[in-house]
This record gives sequence, C-alpha cells and structure tokens, in this order.
Amino acid sequence: MSKATETLGRRLRLGVIGGGPSSFIGKVHRSAATIHEEFDVVAGVFSSDPERSLQAGHAMGIPRPYGDANALFAGEDRCKEPIDALAIMTPNNSHFDLSVRALEAGFHVFCEKPLTTSQEHAISLVQKVRQSGKRYCVAYAYTGFAMVRQARAMVAAGELGEIKMVQSNYTQGHLATLTESEQTGKNWHMDTSLAGPSLILGDIGTHSYHLAAYVTGMEPSSISADVTALVDGRNADDFCAVMMRYPNRARGMLWVTQAAAGGVHGLSLTLFGTKGGIEWHQEQPNELVVRPLGKPAYTLTKGGAGLAKPAQRLSHIAIGHPEGYREAFANLYLDFASNITDDIAKRTPDPLSLWNPSIEEGAQGMAFIYAALNSRDNNGQWTPVPNLTD
Amino acid sequence: MSKATETLGRRLRLGVIGGGPSSFIGKVHRSAATIHEEFDVVAGVFSSDPERSLQAGHAMGIPRPYGDANALFAGEDRCKEPIDALAIMTPNNSHFDLSVRALEAGFHVFCEKPLTTSQEHAISLVQKVRQSGKRYCVAYAYTGFAMVRQARAMVAAGELGEIKMVQSNYTQGHLATLTESEQTGKNWHMDTSLAGPSLILGDIGTHSYHLAAYVTGMEPSSISADVTALVDGRNADDFCAVMMRYPNRARGMLWVTQAAAGGVHGLSLTLFGTKGGIEWHQEQPNELVVRPLGKPAYTLTKGGAGLAKPAQRLSHIAIGHPEGYREAFANLYLDFASNITDDIAKRTPDPLSLWNPSIEEGAQGMAFIYAALNSRDNNGQWTPVPNLTD
Amino acid sequence: MSKATETLGRRLRLGVIGGGPSSFIGKVHRSAATIHEEFDVVAGVFSSDPERSLQAGHAMGIPRPYGDANALFAGEDRCKEPIDALAIMTPNNSHFDLSVRALEAGFHVFCEKPLTTSQEHAISLVQKVRQSGKRYCVAYAYTGFAMVRQARAMVAAGELGEIKMVQSNYTQGHLATLTESEQTGKNWHMDTSLAGPSLILGDIGTHSYHLAAYVTGMEPSSISADVTALVDGRNADDFCAVMMRYPNRARGMLWVTQAAAGGVHGLSLTLFGTKGGIEWHQEQPNELVVRPLGKPAYTLTKGGAGLAKPAQRLSHIAIGHPEGYREAFANLYLDFASNITDDIAKRTPDPLSLWNPSIEEGAQGMAFIYAALNSRDNNGQWTPVPNLTD
Amino acid sequence: MSKATETLGRRLRLGVIGGGPSSFIGKVHRSAATIHEEFDVVAGVFSSDPERSLQAGHAMGIPRPYGDANALFAGEDRCKEPIDALAIMTPNNSHFDLSVRALEAGFHVFCEKPLTTSQEHAISLVQKVRQSGKRYCVAYAYTGFAMVRQARAMVAAGELGEIKMVQSNYTQGHLATLTESEQTGKNWHMDTSLAGPSLILGDIGTHSYHLAAYVTGMEPSSISADVTALVDGRNADDFCAVMMRYPNRARGMLWVTQAAAGGVHGLSLTLFGTKGGIEWHQEQPNELVVRPLGKPAYTLTKGGAGLAKPAQRLSHIAIGHPEGYREAFANLYLDFASNITDDIAKRTPDPLSLWNPSIEEGAQGMAFIYAALNSRDNNGQWTPVPNLTD
Repeated sequence: MSKATETLGRRLRLGVIGGGPSSFIGKVHRSAATIHEEFDVVAGVFSSDPERSLQAGHAMGIPRPYGDANALFAGEDRCKEPIDALAIMTPNNSHFDLSVRALEAGFHVFCEKPLTTSQEHAISLVQKVRQSGKRYCVAYAYTGFAMVRQARAMVAAGELGEIKMVQSNYTQGHLATLTESEQTGKNWHMDTSLAGPSLILGDIGTHSYHLAAYVTGMEPSSISADVTALVDGRNADDFCAVMMRYPNRARGMLWVTQAAAGGVHGLSLTLFGTKGGIEWHQEQPNELVVRPLGKPAYTLTKGGAGLAKPAQRLSHIAIGHPEGYREAFANLYLDFASNITDDIAKRTPDPLSLWNPSIEEGAQGMAFIYAALNSRDNNGQWTPVPNLTD
Repeated sequence: MSKATETLGRRLRLGVIGGGPSSFIGKVHRSAATIHEEFDVVAGVFSSDPERSLQAGHAMGIPRPYGDANALFAGEDRCKEPIDALAIMTPNNSHFDLSVRALEAGFHVFCEKPLTTSQEHAISLVQKVRQSGKRYCVAYAYTGFAMVRQARAMVAAGELGEIKMVQSNYTQGHLATLTESEQTGKNWHMDTSLAGPSLILGDIGTHSYHLAAYVTGMEPSSISADVTALVDGRNADDFCAVMMRYPNRARGMLWVTQAAAGGVHGLSLTLFGTKGGIEWHQEQPNELVVRPLGKPAYTLTKGGAGLAKPAQRLSHIAIGHPEGYREAFANLYLDFASNITDDIAKRTPDPLSLWNPSIEEGAQGMAFIYAALNSRDNNGQWTPVPNLTD
Repeated sequence: MSKATETLGRRLRLGVIGGGPSSFIGKVHRSAATIHEEFDVVAGVFSSDPERSLQAGHAMGIPRPYGDANALFAGEDRCKEPIDALAIMTPNNSHFDLSVRALEAGFHVFCEKPLTTSQEHAISLVQKVRQSGKRYCVAYAYTGFAMVRQARAMVAAGELGEIKMVQSNYTQGHLATLTESEQTGKNWHMDTSLAGPSLILGDIGTHSYHLAAYVTGMEPSSISADVTALVDGRNADDFCAVMMRYPNRARGMLWVTQAAAGGVHGLSLTLFGTKGGIEWHQEQPNELVVRPLGKPAYTLTKGGAGLAKPAQRLSHIAIGHPEGYREAFANLYLDFASNITDDIAKRTPDPLSLWNPSIEEGAQGMAFIYAALNSRDNNGQWTPVPNLTD
Repeated sequence: MSKATETLGRRLRLGVIGGGPSSFIGKVHRSAATIHEEFDVVAGVFSSDPERSLQAGHAMGIPRPYGDANALFAGEDRCKEPIDALAIMTPNNSHFDLSVRALEAGFHVFCEKPLTTSQEHAISLVQKVRQSGKRYCVAYAYTGFAMVRQARAMVAAGELGEIKMVQSNYTQGHLATLTESEQTGKNWHMDTSLAGPSLILGDIGTHSYHLAAYVTGMEPSSISADVTALVDGRNADDFCAVMMRYPNRARGMLWVTQAAAGGVHGLSLTLFGTKGGIEWHQEQPNELVVRPLGKPAYTLTKGGAGLAKPAQRLSHIAIGHPEGYREAFANLYLDFASNITDDIAKRTPDPLSLWNPSIEEGAQGMAFIYAALNSRDNNGQWTPVPNLTD
C-alpha cells in the first residue's frame, strides 16, 4: 500500500536534477523513489547540455523532461500538477543554489551529499530550510539499511551501555590508480571548484563520519586527522585517517580511502559500549553482529527475530531475501514521502520516518570536513568539530 | 535508459493478477517490473474479493484496477492502450487457466512457479506458448542474480570442466512449527487442491531443482527421493531429500525443507567439475566462490573484476553496493521486457535476454515433482525424470 | 598440570606403531599425546622395513625404537617400565591383529579408523576389548574439538528439542584427479585388500557418519546410498551420497567425497531439531553457530561465554586463540590418559573423559560401511544399519 | 623428523622460568617447544614461591624443577647435560636481568614480550645478545602462523607493489570491566613497576605494531597516538589509537584495546599496496585474503595451492586441518631449534628459520611504546619512532 495514495488519493510527484544516462546514481534515485509506490518521477533535468537532457528524459520515459534548471523551475511553476519534491544529484557546488531555489519554489528537497562546498553555505541552508517549513533529506544512503536503523535503535535504548569506542572504515578501491578522467580533467569529483575542498572527505569521508554519528547519536568534541593523496601524481586527497574524542571520553577512529588497490567497498562500523558491541558491514547489509558483554555474539537478520521497530518496518521482503543498496535508498524516499504526506495532510509525522537524515546532519558533514582539514594543516592537532546547526 | 522507450517510444504496460496488500510477493513483482523503467504497472486484480481488489488497486495508485480476472480480460480488450503483458501470482491451481487466457488475449506472460499443478497441464501449456508466439517467463527469481548468471556462464564456457557433483540446498525455517493458518485451513500452500500435490516440492523444491539445472545445463536422468512431513501434526510435506544421477554419471543431492527450526533461508548451490568447483549462497548473493583445481579459491563479486558478460550486464550498481532479491526479480523483468520489445520491433532477441527462465524450465519443474513423489512411493527406487517439453 | 603425574607420580608411557617420517598423521599422534604432559612416547615401530623403522625412531629421538611389531611386543614384555598403551596407525587390515595382540599384552589401545576391514572383525574386537578390561579409543579426531563436544552436550541437554534433520558433508579435493601413487599401486588406501571394501567409506565416510551419530546420539534405522567412483579411470570409490532415516522419523543426508576438485576440506555438520539448529565447520572449528527457534542465531566460541562443561574443559587456551586439528587429537589423548590413570589408580573414571570415541563407535562405523554398500548394490533400497555391539 | 636429533643425535634441552600451573601461557610454551620433537623440557622454575615451584615442576613431570632462578642457574651450571636454552615468561620487569644472566650462562634465550620495561634496557640487551653470539627469540607468537609468513613473503617479493596503507587492529574484551585482580592489586600486568609504563602498549600494542612491521618490513618514521584508560576507575591504559607515517609516505593506523566489551580477540592486519591488498584475521589464521588490483580476491589456505616457501614449510598438517595458536608458537620454537642446531653444528643457518622474531624486533617494540606515550603527552604531536638497534 502506498501511504501517499491512501492518504492523498494520489502518488507524490518527484522531479530530479542530475543523474543522466551514464550515471548509476541517477537510476538509483529514480527507482528508489518509486519502489514503494509513493512517488512517480514526472519531471527532470538529465544533462548540463539542454538538448541531451531532453533526449535522455524522453528515452527514460519521463513525462516532463527539461533542458535545464531554469526551465524546470519555470515549467513546474506553470504546471497544474507540479512536483511536490525535487531530488538533487548534481555536482556538489550547485547543491546550495538549487536547494535554495527549490525551497523558494515550495518544493521539498532530497539532496546528495556533501551538502555544500563551504561551511557558510551549510549554515545558511540550515536556516533556509527551517524557515521554509519544507522537508529536506540528505542522501546518506547507508542510513536506509534496516540493520543500521537497528544499530541506532539499540544504542538509543541503551542496549550497548555507554558507547566507549567507535571505528568507522570505508576503503574503496576504484581510485587506486590515476584514472583517465582525472588526467584529462573530466572527473568533477577531482576538481575542488566543483566538488569542494577534499575529494575523499566529501565523497565518502562524510558517509563514514555520518554513519558513526547517526548510529551513536554522538558527535566528537575534537578530532586529529591525517588527510593526503597516496596515489603518485594525484592532487586530490584520496586518504584520511581520523582519531576522535567524544564529550564522554569515548574514542573513535576513521579510516577512509578510495585508493585501496583491490578493495571492494569496505564500509563498516564497529562500536563498543560498556555493555557490548556491534559490527556492521555494508557488503553484508542484512546482518548485524551484536556482542553482548559476557554472552555469545549473535547475529540479527533483516526480517528475522529480535528486531526493534525501526528495523522491522524496513524489512520489506521475507527473511533471507537480501535487500540491497537500492532498497536502502528507497527507505530514505519512503521516509521522505511519509513526512511530505503527513505535512500535506496536516498530520503529526510518524516519529520513525523522522529517522531519515536531516539538513542538520548534512551540515555537520561540512563541519567534519573543515575540522579534519584544519587538523591536518596543524600537524595533527586535536581540533574541535563546531556545531553548525544552532 | 529504457530499451522499450528508446525503441518503441513508450514504456511497456504490465497487468498483474494476484499479490494483494498483505502479500510481499505482489509488491516485489510490481517494483521489480518498474525498477529499470521498462514497464509501468497499469492494471491489476488484487484480491479474490472484487470489492477489495478495486480498493487495493486504488490504494496502490494503479490506473486500472479490476474486480476479477474476467473484468481484466474484458477491460483490457476494450482498452486503446491495453497491457502488453500479464504477471500471474495467484494460487498454483489457477496458473494454467490464467496463462491460457492471457496468451489467447495476446499478452505475454510472467508467471509464478510451480508452473501448474499437474504434468498434463504443464505439457499442454508448453504447446500453447509455442503456438502463441508470445513470451513466457517463469518466476524462478534466483536466476536473476548476476552471480547465478556468472555461474551458468562459467559452466557453459567449460571453466569447471565436466560437472561431476551438484549439491543444492534450501533450508527455510518459517514452517518449523504448525502455523495458525494451516490449522485453520487458511494457507492455500498447504491445500493440495490449490497448491498441487506436494507443498515442499512445489514451493521451494522446484527452485532448488531448477537452480541446479539452470546453472549446470543438465537434467538428471533419474532420482531417488525421500519426501515427508517432519513437523508433528502436519499433512503437507515439509521435507525432501533427493539423490540425482546424470547422464554423464555425475551425481547430485538436494536437501530442501521449510521446517528447519531457526533456519534463515539456506538456499545454496555447490558444484564440482573436473577442473574446479563453485559455491553460491543466496544470503550473500553478490559473491560467487570459485575453487579452481590446483589454485587458490577466489571470490567473484557483482560489479567486480573477472565477470563474464551475462553477469556484467546485470551488475547495475557500482561494485560493493549489494543488489538483492528484488533486483534479481527486476532482472527477470528486464530480460522479459527486452524480449517483448525486440518482438514488437521485429528484431532478433538479445541472446543474453533469453537467459530468463522459459516455459520449458517451468514444465521440467513439474516433471521433477512427480518423479520425486513416484520414487518416494516406491521405497526410494531410482526413477527417471521425463522430458515434458519435446 | 598432568593428571597422570599428579596421580601416579609419572607420565604414562605410549608406544606407537605406524606413522613414519613421511606420514603427517604419525607426528600428529605423537605430539597430540604429549601436548598435555600426560604421555611420553617411549617406543615405536615406524616402517614396515625394520632397518628404516629403527633409523626413523632414532632420528625422532624415541627411546626404544623397534624393527617390527613382534620386536615391540617382545621388547616391551621384557622391559621394566613397559608402555601403558599402544597407538596403532598402520594400514586398516592390520588394525584387528595389532589390537588383539596389544590387548593380550595388557596395553590400552588408541587405534586409527576405520576400526577393521570386516564386520566380523569389528564384532569380535568389541568382545575382546570388553573382556580385556582395557581402554580402547578410536581416532575419530573431529570429536576432540571443543565445539563438537559443545554440540553433543546441547543435543543431550535437549536444547535443540527432538532432532529432526541431520546433514553431514565431507568434500575433500585431494583425489580430484588420478594420482601417481594410485596408478603405480603404491597408495594402500586404494587397495581393498589393505584398506577394506570402499576407499571413500573407510577413509572419510566413517568420519562423517560418526560425527553425526556422536553429536546426535542417534543411529539411523535404515539408509539409502549411492557409492561410486567419479574420477575417470579410478576403481576405488571416491563419492558417496546417503539418505538416512532415524527411528524417530528424523531424516539425514551425507555427502562425502575426496574428488571435489578445488575443495579444501569441507567437513561440516548441520542439525535441526524442534527447538532450533546448529552448524559446525571443521575449517573454523572454534565456532559453533546455534539457531534457536524464534530468536537470533548466535555463535559460541571456544573459551567464550555460554559453553557447557564438556566444551569448557577442552578450551585450553584463552578465548580468541584458535586451537586446531592437532589439539582435537590431543583432547582424545587427554581423555584416554584420564581413563587409564583412573583405572591404574582404581578410581571412578571422570564421566566427561568417557566422551572419547569408544570401540562400539568404531564398530558401528563398519556397520555403516557395509549397509551403504548393500544399499548401493540393491538400487538404492532402504537398508538397515545393524547394531554390531550388542 | 627432528632436525636436532638427526644432526646432533639428541633433542635440545630447554629450561623454562615462569608459567606456573594456573598460567595458560606456560603450558603453551612447553608444548610448543616439544611438538616438533626438537626440544625436551628438562628444567624449570614455576612459581615465585620456591616450594610451590618445586611442587609444580614435579606435578608436570619436569625432570629438574628448581625453587628459583638462582637455583636454576647454579643447578644447570653443575649439570653434565645442562639446558641449551632458557624460555622466560616471568613479569616484564625481570626479562632484562634473566636474559642477561641466561646469556652469560651460555644459554640461548626465548623471551616473552614486551622485551623490557625501559628503552635503555632494550638498547643494552641488543648489545649483549650481539656480543654473546647466542640466539634470542622474542615471543611475538602471531608471526609463527604460516599465513603471516605468507603475507611477509608476498610483500617482500613485491606482489603487493609498494605498501601504501597499513591497518592493524587488536580488540580484546577480557578487560571490559574492572576485574577483581586489578582492584585487589594482584594483576601484575596492571602494575607499572612490574609491567612497564603502559598496560595496553606492552601487552598487545607491541603485538599489533610488530605484526605490521614484520609483514611490511617497514617501521614508521613518526606516529601520532592517543593512549588512555576507557574503563571507569582504571588507572592502567586499556586503549590506544595510533596514526603512522612511513618514510615512503605510506600511512598506517592501529586500534588496540582490551576493553572491547563483548570482543573476542580481534587481531587483524590489512595492507594495501600499489598492486593490491591482503587481509588476515588471527581468529581464522589459516586463511589469507589477497586482493590483487583489477582481479578477483582470492584466499590462500595453509597447506593449499599457491603458497610461498616460508608458508609451505610451516604447513605441517594436510590442507583443511586447522593449525592454531599453539602451533604458531611451536613454529617459533622450530625456528629457534633450527638456529641453535645449526650453531652447534657450526653450519650456516637456514635462512627461513631466521624469520623468527629477533632481539632487534623486541627492542623496536619498546621504541614504539615510548614514542606513543610521548605523542599522547604532547597533544597527539607527530613523534619519531627511534631506531634502538643501530
């Protein structure tokens, strides 16, 4: 059943900007939005070249393709049944402007990370979202996995006691050598004017940092970081190591790279609290290993016994049938749709749908990036992570 | 990009019958059909109660919900833009009739397994499909996993040499105790008049048997089977063990149950040939372990290095991002759409899209069921598996 | 501490027969016997060639090497401090005679499996051991792993409820091709006059069968078996598949081969009872996965929390430090030494030390071999497994 | 075969000091020394209480137990067949003195880590060992695993290219809460006067650091460390996080704790070089995962295909039969015996036997401890790791 259809008598309408035919993330967004029958993708811009954008939109069967963002905002403004929400998956330096315009147009926003390319923009966007009264979801996709929600629920319920140690790794291998696109300047991720100050921190460091914060509910008070390029001839950072200290004296470590030759994905989170630990690997996302103090370790499984409500509700398919990355993304869109539907229907939002990643969490990703670079530039000095969301 | 839209200027139109609001498989079908932007789900019947069917269809946002199958066939017949294909996910005893009617109405068919509830119907349906010239895909969902295609490609290319041993296990736990629905007679899977002669063989035995046949390209010449109910008080079979002998003197074993108390899913396939072996577990579907003779075992990963074309083309998301059960299903619909599109466009079908499971493979599932029951009834006697598709 | 030394003021004295310099099993026996400081290896025969036997014994630093079995029995008879026990690791057809002579000489016996090469010898040896009052341990080495003992303890305590399904696999790869030694007739395992009627059944089928019986405490009432040679040009059986039926209607399967090209070892045991299941893999022997009905699966670890006494007492090294195959063997010798020490000291034996594999268990291995061959020769007919030990 | 016996006509004679009846490490040393039939344990001190030492030695069946170290040195001095080597497993603050006395008595030494409790002693001991001409092996036990040797061999052969990233974790859980022995002051590991300046660094930090150095052949040029006590009420450090920078600009991280509530052991090493990566977990020590750039990951197995000579020679038991922690220890003793035997026989040492951990490696463990503490005391400042062995 579709909550939107049941409540509003129609599916929600989504526009997208970015994610052309050669982009895997574009298709992930579009299919994730529709899996739970909450959204139809009805409008979009699919290329910075207007002609190619229109062509691509037609080839995808999108009802209202546009040539560029201006056309989209203008066209939807004129439309009788305009989009309810805009999903943004363009290069990082455009996130701020597009978000602001979308909010001003009255659209809810689903935006890729990193949120912006500067702290100032992040601070400003937090304010604008709050003023707009619109929903804003940041695409920290890994938080859509049922077992990540389970981990967060267990920490929140005190099942691990007080958290004492956090280890968050993300060791991809796809940039283990100089790529053609970076040598020819065609990979915008490598261009700091488009991607922001640090490739590794923006691309996946924010994921790793956010995952730790999302599950533990804790932000470090200070960090000591080493950020560098390990591949010879590369200018963009492809490695960071971070030590973290939390207000409660807990300790954390991040190890994040895209230059792990032979590495597959390597996203994992390990926590230890006073009552036990947990371990999650994105490559086997439907399992969560729990290590209670003084008892045997056990494995929680999506759809299986012993799950908390936040994980049960995202176990869509029967136990043993894996749900993957696309479905994690779909869960964010499911929450996003739930929030929008409740807003339209003027209802109290479902509390568990508020577990999708917020504008504030997007902003703290920017705080992390800048704190890590500051520490690196100061010989590893312990550096505070500011709160950008007060 | 959508092949249908690029080729035909529109997405394909799918009708569904079965899979109401409380069914997980219904939503899997509908989302699987749309993930690759090849189909829109435009019509459907969602309950045996006409009123509830219409209600459910509206609540899902389906454009043309119908009260029953008659209404669907009649309505689509009158429709200017009728469905191209019908997906059938009703109780097993209706598969035959609905399939025949759909073919006669000129629809392509995507049907749940087991194909029918008798061998005669299976033989008849093979003939009807061949005469119709329509596409018919059987929902052997596990064959949609990229790594199952990889396994099949490796066997076909001779990378494992001559296959000598096959082990196919499927050990679910969800019927480890008597369930309320079976005690009150409300579970049609337990009712032989609706489900066919053997719960375990029809429900998942056919999956396990087909998976082995699909990957190896071999059907056993004879089998020796033990089929029984292990849960006290149950009439329907919940366990089967099968030994298999192949024409080339290879040997196989199946162990299939739904009564494995504490079991999660347990679907796995292990092969050994003269040049090496492979091992696949559905709970970690994005990996395939390969054991070459005289060399270290290696692990192929969806989207990773060393994949054959049939697995590469189904690696939709970047390496390390798991694709799950829903996406395996989506791959079957992707192939189905490819075949239909090529037919409409009067083009030669893409050979790799013909790797979706055929009507013949559906029929051989019925041959297996009946051979296993015959062997069981004859004290485990080695019993031929007939070819129903000549 | 050494129980023997504490109790008797000295270590026990072990003689060995078999296991020359090129044998890995010989060194395993000798080191396993001494790891717990219960035995010294003081005498032995190490080759069928008397001169090489003496040479090898000297090169190993064995105090009393002998040229052959006659010399050993004669020499120890004359010795003031003769051996307490004899370990036999010669070709299978000599197990019976050497065992009888050892018992007659007053030695306890630790003998390799299969126990004998005929059922008659097995029956006879059971009687002789009982009459002798000596201890007789059969080298079913896998029963020495702490987690196998844990599994047995859990079944015995009813933690899995009534056992309903058993699957025991053993899929080695070392005979995946014709070996030089079998082509030149130099591998006694391939020679039925030395090894007994069936290579695969004697070599590792008995292990797999015994492991299932040891853990479940159940022997099948009848079996249906397929036993054959899968490698072209081989005469000796290298594959068996067995279906089993138990008195309580439980079902079992065995899949055992040495011809699994690329296979490493593949010894595993999976059980399901009415209250849950367990799974053990010899390649990760320090873990036991437990799947309780309706709860998450958990993993018991050697030396870790939640172990029963029989597993705790064999967790010699601190948690997380693996104990391997040699230490499993050492646990059998530890039990054997405990039994001998208690006998010498005229004390009641430690009940948990009686969990080492008995002469009766050795005899039932022979019953299994012959029942499997009978079933194979009768087209897979369900065939009783006789009790040879009444 | 025993190299000592074959070469010298006798086994080597080992004395031990430390490792009483309640110590698991004592028994590990004694059994490890004898597994390969190279050493007999003939003398020892087993308690700081002379009477209990003698009692324990008798109860273990040790030929020459002594009441204390003085008695041992005096007794062996008078003995016609004195010990060849002394194994030291006493509290850390005695390692230096006992080592010096043993060397002066002409014994080879096998000593527990950490080597000493000060850098000065470490420097001094390196000199004394060099002057003595005796063999000195430090009990970095994990380097005895065949697959750790394999990893080192692969790095040395350039198979991973230039090493770029190192991650070495060790996350034990046995001190996750305040223990009784530390509260009553009875755990010498917690007493800096006996154990040295930092519990965590001395106990297992040195292991983790050494493992990384041993396999990569690289020492970091500088480190940034966070060392602290995470368990409330504990004075001794139970956690350290370390970032490392290598001369070639490679980066490393260590995460080491004994306070990981629910943790089992958690010793692992992950490397990435320009040509690929490897991953090893001590809890599954017989496997090494290799991730070659641009190819599928493969798994090397002890005793299996594709091993380098240093791993082959330590694969004592046939493939698939696990060898554990005790056997890793036994491999160090095997190398130690080989070196001593070659020295006695005035032969060139076997080069692969020189892969056992040297006095220099012991000393660098002390350099690491002090550098980590310095960095911690200076707000995480990048701090050089001095070379103590020039």
